[in-house]
Amino acid sequence: MIRMTTKPLLLVACLVTALGAASTANGDQSAGNMLGFSANTAASQQKLEESFDAQLQASDIKSWLKSMSSEPNQVGSPHDKANAEFVLAKFKEFGWDARIETFSVLYPTPKKVQLQLIAPTHYDAVLREPPIPGDPSTDITKNVLPPYNAYGGDGDVTGELVYANYGLPDDYAELARHGIDVRGKIVITRYGGGWRGLKPELAQEHGAIGCLIYSDPHEDGYFKGDVYPKGSWRPDQGVQRGSVAKMQVHPGDPLTPNIGSTKDAKRLAIKDAKTILKIPVLPISYGDATPLLEALGGPIAPDSWRGSLPMAYHMGSGPAKVHMVVESDWDQKTIYDVIAKLKGSTMPDQWIIRGNHRDGWVFGTEDPLSSHVAMLEEAKVLGAMYKKGWRPQRTIVYGSWDGEEPGLLGSTEWVETHAKELSQKAVLYINTDGTSRGFLGAGGSHSLQHLVNQVAADVTDPETNVSVEKRLRAHLMTTGHEGGSAEAKAQAKAAASGGDLPIEALGSGSDFTPFLQHLGIASLNVGFGGEGGGGVYHSAYDTFDHYARFSDPKFEYGVTLAKVVGRLVMRMADADVLPMRFSDFSAKLTEYMGELHQLVAKTRAATEQQHRLLDSDAFKLAADPLDPVAPPVRESDMPQIDLKPLDESIKKLARSMQAYDAAYKKVQDAGYRMPKGQERQLNELIGRMEASLTDPAGLPGRTWFKHMVYAPGMLTGYGVKTLPGVREALEARRWNEANEYAGVTAKVIDGYRAQIEKATALLNKS
Amino acid sequence: MIRMTTKPLLLVACLVTALGAASTANGDQSAGNMLGFSANTAASQQKLEESFDAQLQASDIKSWLKSMSSEPNQVGSPHDKANAEFVLAKFKEFGWDARIETFSVLYPTPKKVQLQLIAPTHYDAVLREPPIPGDPSTDITKNVLPPYNAYGGDGDVTGELVYANYGLPDDYAELARHGIDVRGKIVITRYGGGWRGLKPELAQEHGAIGCLIYSDPHEDGYFKGDVYPKGSWRPDQGVQRGSVAKMQVHPGDPLTPNIGSTKDAKRLAIKDAKTILKIPVLPISYGDATPLLEALGGPIAPDSWRGSLPMAYHMGSGPAKVHMVVESDWDQKTIYDVIAKLKGSTMPDQWIIRGNHRDGWVFGTEDPLSSHVAMLEEAKVLGAMYKKGWRPQRTIVYGSWDGEEPGLLGSTEWVETHAKELSQKAVLYINTDGTSRGFLGAGGSHSLQHLVNQVAADVTDPETNVSVEKRLRAHLMTTGHEGGSAEAKAQAKAAASGGDLPIEALGSGSDFTPFLQHLGIASLNVGFGGEGGGGVYHSAYDTFDHYARFSDPKFEYGVTLAKVVGRLVMRMADADVLPMRFSDFSAKLTEYMGELHQLVAKTRAATEQQHRLLDSDAFKLAADPLDPVAPPVRESDMPQIDLKPLDESIKKLARSMQAYDAAYKKVQDAGYRMPKGQERQLNELIGRMEASLTDPAGLPGRTWFKHMVYAPGMLTGYGVKTLPGVREALEARRWNEANEYAGVTAKVIDGYRAQIEKATALLNKS
Repeated sequence: MIRMTTKPLLLVACLVTALGAASTANGDQSAGNMLGFSANTAASQQKLEESFDAQLQASDIKSWLKSMSSEPNQVGSPHDKANAEFVLAKFKEFGWDARIETFSVLYPTPKKVQLQLIAPTHYDAVLREPPIPGDPSTDITKNVLPPYNAYGGDGDVTGELVYANYGLPDDYAELARHGIDVRGKIVITRYGGGWRGLKPELAQEHGAIGCLIYSDPHEDGYFKGDVYPKGSWRPDQGVQRGSVAKMQVHPGDPLTPNIGSTKDAKRLAIKDAKTILKIPVLPISYGDATPLLEALGGPIAPDSWRGSLPMAYHMGSGPAKVHMVVESDWDQKTIYDVIAKLKGSTMPDQWIIRGNHRDGWVFGTEDPLSSHVAMLEEAKVLGAMYKKGWRPQRTIVYGSWDGEEPGLLGSTEWVETHAKELSQKAVLYINTDGTSRGFLGAGGSHSLQHLVNQVAADVTDPETNVSVEKRLRAHLMTTGHEGGSAEAKAQAKAAASGGDLPIEALGSGSDFTPFLQHLGIASLNVGFGGEGGGGVYHSAYDTFDHYARFSDPKFEYGVTLAKVVGRLVMRMADADVLPMRFSDFSAKLTEYMGELHQLVAKTRAATEQQHRLLDSDAFKLAADPLDPVAPPVRESDMPQIDLKPLDESIKKLARSMQAYDAAYKKVQDAGYRMPKGQERQLNELIGRMEASLTDPAGLPGRTWFKHMVYAPGMLTGYGVKTLPGVREALEARRWNEANEYAGVTAKVIDGYRAQIEKATALLNKS
Repeated sequence: MIRMTTKPLLLVACLVTALGAASTANGDQSAGNMLGFSANTAASQQKLEESFDAQLQASDIKSWLKSMSSEPNQVGSPHDKANAEFVLAKFKEFGWDARIETFSVLYPTPKKVQLQLIAPTHYDAVLREPPIPGDPSTDITKNVLPPYNAYGGDGDVTGELVYANYGLPDDYAELARHGIDVRGKIVITRYGGGWRGLKPELAQEHGAIGCLIYSDPHEDGYFKGDVYPKGSWRPDQGVQRGSVAKMQVHPGDPLTPNIGSTKDAKRLAIKDAKTILKIPVLPISYGDATPLLEALGGPIAPDSWRGSLPMAYHMGSGPAKVHMVVESDWDQKTIYDVIAKLKGSTMPDQWIIRGNHRDGWVFGTEDPLSSHVAMLEEAKVLGAMYKKGWRPQRTIVYGSWDGEEPGLLGSTEWVETHAKELSQKAVLYINTDGTSRGFLGAGGSHSLQHLVNQVAADVTDPETNVSVEKRLRAHLMTTGHEGGSAEAKAQAKAAASGGDLPIEALGSGSDFTPFLQHLGIASLNVGFGGEGGGGVYHSAYDTFDHYARFSDPKFEYGVTLAKVVGRLVMRMADADVLPMRFSDFSAKLTEYMGELHQLVAKTRAATEQQHRLLDSDAFKLAADPLDPVAPPVRESDMPQIDLKPLDESIKKLARSMQAYDAAYKKVQDAGYRMPKGQERQLNELIGRMEASLTDPAGLPGRTWFKHMVYAPGMLTGYGVKTLPGVREALEARRWNEANEYAGVTAKVIDGYRAQIEKATALLNKS
């Protein structure tokens, strides 16, 4: 999994604060209210789901997880390929139509990595994760690569060290105010605050010659809890690996943007690839970072830059001087996707796709195999039901992706290869990417929010025996009650209201990206978390033993995840009318629009205030002459911003959504089943709704990303930016572009509205 | 100095976010607008102040500071007495009428202190502060006592250890939710979060048999910056001493509440004293705390409990087991106040009092001597001007207090001894208690806010050459602009508005308390800070060398403080009409009243929400069964709260204040000087205004505290509670008491109003 930050943060910031549960306030969970089904079809669907649940077995999950994570599983490793063959065999055994599809990708692996402090003292960095007493997996060295950041440059560099906090834009502004320039220097940053790949990218942009990224114990170590093996958390030599490719420009093989990296695909030269960095990058442990940081002089780092190492953090540069070497094998490697299908009966050309990646940075037990084996378990039962005569109306496609960790390679290349067919047929992509104990987390297209809520209300939480929806609601309400962020409080309020729990918008970080943001296929990302201990994200310590001790000792959340995702798949595949509720989406858009107006107002006020402070010399007068900090750079003036076209377009959409809801309700209330042909027409229309949110021209500077509502941020890496064309232009003070994209986005939303109006007309004909 | 928390926090939370500066927006700083003066008298006052400034010398401050802090200065030490004699001689040399007044007080000093970890491993705590290379003062051992907390009990106890975070009420609620009971245990708490004395008091109330208080490096150590001697911050064996007497009940000698502890005063038996604890208490360094905390088991402490030691913080109890011994000498000791006077000419029975304590925990260079020597420098110049014929209209009284550190002993006993005379004569008390580089901080009676602003606008900041008012305004505006708390943002807004900078309300923590809160004498507390490094608060490392390196290397802020306080004293002493503006006070009261209404609304909403969550089992459902946290205890129901009497009273006061301002302006605008007799009558009236804010019955449970607007909080120790009768009752859910004190406080404010209406009538007669 590629995450914008460490695992424990994700579980809070993403899985947990992301929502996904159902409205039970009015007890509307009876079969009669199942979205997309009539009273009759809902009743049989409920029976089907009960039968599905009954056949799931935790023992499968345990044994498959143990065997699949018994050896290193990175791209190119023998065991990753062996697992592909195992998965293929399983799908076939379960009765699916399955095959392996291969691609040839550029994937660098380290041949030599080296790091030394050479002044004012000497220290040779360990750069490996030693065995942990009591965990036999950690004794394995065969096929384990040294920790590295994929797609950094090769290099042998020596320079003074600078500490740049999280290495994000504000951090460089702060360094500059302290008179510190990173040109010709080596930058050390800590994980967290934003996506990993931005750290070396921004270091490179600012002229640094190398970049180190370490896990501070504050975010990922003893500050969180006892370290492995006493507790689950990252020990002093634990390292977070991860890709630093510029995936916010495009994911997938760096040499084949927009096309599948099949054997004979036309490839860019490596030097022309847009997503590979030039400077060497290394991830290191806090054990290795400590002597480096201790050797730094220069100003004391600001409060918010300080972690939990027992020292005063300095910014540098120097006197610490560092020598680092990264040399990689830049050969093409083969990746193996396993694709399996169950053909639909009445609407075989509507595809419900569900996937999980299979490659890990090392053993990959939690990330990604814990949810991959849940996927296999779903496949087992779906296959068994198929064998017994169950026929979904739509086609079900399961994918076991390779090469997600380095850059969503397996999913992206498959999507690019089959783009045309997928654009015609795919109506949903459901992703999982690791799971643990705790609370349901779900993100995705907001037209699916009500479906997620209904499903969550029908699945029982194994620890409390209430529905996972009810447990999540309790979690959100109590978390917000007991303090916490403004966001937590807003979520507590939403949860307490009794209505649907909101699902979060998706940025990136996993295989949903090519489906959702390149092709415009409605998508979901689902998992459990919040209770299992973290601390081994992208580490060789993400082992079966660690998972079984801390993450899901009874493997019951693996089963619960299968229940949730299995239901999502079956309801989407079996529904009379695709179970989407578009008014939820337009309500969200209205909310995002409010945020944009606030952003404009806040930016204007902050700009005016900054100018006033600069004009009155306030920064100079407030500075400590013995520890001087220069005034900030003057922000550009802010002209009028015209968001009106987008306001209008979203207002009109809201009205059209109400009309659609009313028309649909009329049909439903009448107990009327539309004629098959008309129903199919309706399904085809709404199955393509999400695609109409894309613009073929894509987003500015990254045409691969075509979705105009959901995108990963250029400067947040994987954190989502909604209405990104406008929002990112405003944030970057590109005023003309903001005005332009208010128009572009409005036009896209008008197209979306035109389509729902066709659907409404179709319903009103009934 | 007694502070509610560590020095660095104070500088941010109190001196710096406390304000004190002047409105220059409309350039109203010409002599003609000097509050309390006519155009003529203002012009000569300005000349006087220029002459005052010209005679101040940094070299005096440096040499007096060096000699006064050359040996330990705690109560009972030879050097504390020698300093009293030195100060007496100086005052006499300067031409003041000076004498030493002694009191006999109960002041325990340690005979034996001992601390050991006895299970699961063994560790003998160091319990002393070793010498620091390069700082000769730290080699001195003669008369240095081991670190201790004055007024804890004697005891030799052994028990399991429990970590209780800051040791405040919420922390015990959290322990209880984790099933941890401190009865029969020894509690270890960290400094910060609230006043020191509450920690052992609450530990004792909850049944603990001993209490340790350590300085976590997060609040007071390497997290803040380089430690001494590399930087200024607290090193691993640095200890914060301090009193733990229950001074929120009453300060001063525990055996003589309400009366002066003269030789023959009637004394309580020690066992009957209300302010002495029963259990032993010891302050320890983070060096000594580390092995103890490392040995703790039990649940992982919540996020907000974790400091910056390199470990996972556990709550306990055990397996860590601790043995501690405290044995003290409980003899009576003599304290020495030095009192000096310059008699007033026309109004000798209006006293302007200014004081600073002289005793320190060890050498006491910054705390308290740095501002004590500024006071001496003021006295030198005032004396010189007096010799040359200057005669203040009012009498000036300077006090060098002993025994502040253990419990405001010197000031309280002097105030109690002379209560009758002071009640008749004192119109102002100005306190200082240590100073450093940076920004002006001022707190006090809000009728003095405009005076403070005018003075601050007339004094030049030595680092920037703008007024200290302008520099503080720049500091507040930039701090609020660059993020920070909601309070910082509100202050930035106030600062940007161009009007007077607000001064903060006073709680306790220094010698203003007996003057302001026992007798109702309008008071101010003033100092500079925010730039000098902290880290030696109440430590043997608060030495001359440390101060000269980090706090005020040129001793120029000592001079600047003398300029500020000298002006305050001279303007109060010389003014035609006492320079107070009561409408500032009524505006503040309106603000506090708004806070009380918000408190009622918030408490009601939180109570209802907690009940809903409990009723729906949300806490149970959200809890992790493998790391269980019990639901919170159900809060009491909340009845109607009636604040109307107080609302009405404050509204009426605001109108009366407007009438007074209008009447005063009319007189001033007319350039009219009132007849002497009438002016004296007016001065007598407004000089007694603050006293009318007291109620002879005092606050509930602590009759010594008689001020109904400003008090230290019973549960914040020294943090202020404004309108305390109502506010503390609401916070403690004593609903009837809240209603009752809304009435009591309203009546007091009505009395205050009656007095200002008399003053208005007097003005209108003119």
